[in-house]
Amino acid sequence: MSVSLLEQLIDALRVLPGVGQKSAQRMAYHLLERQREGGVRLSAAMADAMERIGHCRRCRDFSETETCPTCASGSRDAHLLCVVESPADRLAIEQATGFRGQYFVLQGRLSPLDGIGPRELGLDQLVQRLREGEVKELIVATNPTVEGEATAHYLAQLARAQDVQPSRLAHGVPLGGELEYVDRGTLSHAFGSRSEIPNDQLKHQETKEPVR
Amino acid sequence: MSVSLLEQLIDALRVLPGVGQKSAQRMAYHLLERQREGGVRLSAAMADAMERIGHCRRCRDFSETETCPTCASGSRDAHLLCVVESPADRLAIEQATGFRGQYFVLQGRLSPLDGIGPRELGLDQLVQRLREGEVKELIVATNPTVEGEATAHYLAQLARAQDVQPSRLAHGVPLGGELEYVDRGTLSHAFGSRSEIPNDQLKHQETKEPVR
Repeated sequence: MSVSLLEQLIDALRVLPGVGQKSAQRMAYHLLERQREGGVRLSAAMADAMERIGHCRRCRDFSETETCPTCASGSRDAHLLCVVESPADRLAIEQATGFRGQYFVLQGRLSPLDGIGPRELGLDQLVQRLREGEVKELIVATNPTVEGEATAHYLAQLARAQDVQPSRLAHGVPLGGELEYVDRGTLSHAFGSRSEIPNDQLKHQETKEPVR
Repeated sequence: MSVSLLEQLIDALRVLPGVGQKSAQRMAYHLLERQREGGVRLSAAMADAMERIGHCRRCRDFSETETCPTCASGSRDAHLLCVVESPADRLAIEQATGFRGQYFVLQGRLSPLDGIGPRELGLDQLVQRLREGEVKELIVATNPTVEGEATAHYLAQLARAQDVQPSRLAHGVPLGGELEYVDRGTLSHAFGSRSEIPNDQLKHQETKEPVR
């Protein structure tokens, strides 16, 4: 017997991250029972996106146009360039911070064992951009993993060679976290990188009741 | 600025059950970065399924043909008819049990407040089928919820009126569960519906070492 359309759909849904056989079944039945229109819309949006989304030729982020809206915008600060590993990281920074500079998306991290070197990350393109002379600060926002740190180190050298100041996101205890549950490496780093509490902040704290 | 294809995709992905903004972002980026082909396949499978999957005219299950393969099959026992609420329930029974009879899928349960009555569940069709005289036992496999029980009660009456023996799935303590964590209603039902241990099983147990 040939594979039914339903089975094909369930099987195809499993390309989604975190979706196994059971979730795929649930999704397929949900669409068929209650969301036919949503399913039609989703399939069209997906086909469109897969076909028409390429990469911005300036920042390598996903874009449906040759240059993405952020790069094309005249209102972004061209002196600040933030380098991230992935489009998702770029979106996270864009949503969380008030950053108004520009981005460069590596679409990966240096990983010689997987054959990912400076070429694959478009670093020649990045150097070219630094050479243009507009960028004053290169904000390196790679992930705090071993490979991300190695990439950051490499990028900092690149920047210095072009007389651009590299900077790095602060590492430390996450806001809202409890010291007890913070991993050792982070805690040790945060302890070593402690900063002086400025005088006015101290005064402000003294006037408040101590908590418990 | 118009909504980008990426934003449209993320938005459309949220029709999937259990998928919020964050998961939808993750799925969209995953497809774009690593699964373009899978995404193309998925969008095609979804469009096909949404357009071409209808209902079997005999059992009301999802089917891309007028009569589903199970109903069309000559090797299923026509004396046994199992009534379930949804196609997912039918699949669960088909996968877990060795049931070789036929199914009838209500595509819902009696729920007068939501305007779902016997007509919406195709019960006239079910009665017609019972009248044909082939079915000897109607296995009522609705969910053990208030509405499912009410539906089961109604179905049992329907069956008896056509001289068909209705039966119900056993309720009790789930296999592998711990009594301590079983809800009160289930435990009370299982206690009330306890069954005698047949003699040979008892003997078999006596020859084994008692567990702790």
